[in-house]
Amino acid sequence: MKKRVLTLVLGAALGGGCIAGALAQVKPEFLVAQRHAAMILQGKYMYSIVPMAMGRIPYDAAIVSRNVGYLDVLSKMPWDGFQPSTADVKETKALPAIYSDPAKFKAAQENYFSELAKLDAAVKTGNEATIKAAILDTNNKGCNGCHNDFRAKSQ
Amino acid sequence: MKKRVLTLVLGAALGGGCIAGALAQVKPEFLVAQRHAAMILQGKYMYSIVPMAMGRIPYDAAIVSRNVGYLDVLSKMPWDGFQPSTADVKETKALPAIYSDPAKFKAAQENYFSELAKLDAAVKTGNEATIKAAILDTNNKGCNGCHNDFRAKSQ
Repeated sequence: MKKRVLTLVLGAALGGGCIAGALAQVKPEFLVAQRHAAMILQGKYMYSIVPMAMGRIPYDAAIVSRNVGYLDVLSKMPWDGFQPSTADVKETKALPAIYSDPAKFKAAQENYFSELAKLDAAVKTGNEATIKAAILDTNNKGCNGCHNDFRAKSQ
Repeated sequence: MKKRVLTLVLGAALGGGCIAGALAQVKPEFLVAQRHAAMILQGKYMYSIVPMAMGRIPYDAAIVSRNVGYLDVLSKMPWDGFQPSTADVKETKALPAIYSDPAKFKAAQENYFSELAKLDAAVKTGNEATIKAAILDTNNKGCNGCHNDFRAKSQ
């Protein structure tokens, strides 16, 4: 029961908006778990269409359209979890540059949104080659453009 | 690099559709992590508006509308992760009934979608009391209706 109340309080402090004071009080590990969840799901829906764009698995227009719609929404979810209070959490690949150069981190997010907007526009054309190119651009410039500077490399 | 290729393959097997054969080959812990991510984010956006519906924090119509939109999308994401191959994963609260009574589990999902649809309709009315009641119904009947039967209680 205690845990449930805590969940409600934490939830209120988070998904309820980016109130700096509330976020500063939330357990950093919880913020990391939430932003990580958003990254895991972006991976689920992006890395199922990247192989289509690369010609490694059959192209499925319905799945591409669905996944891009999901990514539009998921792409909005991780950012309020990157609070300075999480800088010392060990179970994350997030690099210190996120907090030391927030303007550059913000620009990388905006770049991702921009690539996603182009992907949305490409999906609307219905042209498979255009869509495939936009999927790869979103992954290479959008996702990886941010990961290169702000996420530790896998061992 | 190996890890990246693996991610692509796993992603292709998952977000690319519910292909039973592909899912059976995916590491069960990975399926659990993905469905858990969808649950964490539903918690983030639901448990920030439940306290508004309960009158414990100020009601914010813009946040409610945004979060309900997010929940509409997130609510579609966990289900393909509940594969029988995950039944033996220890790091989950998912109960065996999910796999022994799939029809009842499916009905619980449908009930959640139905409550969410009512919440969508309530949001469109703009009537705060109606919306608050629908938020509580979605939580009590939709979320908890499934959790009661298919998720282990917290200690």
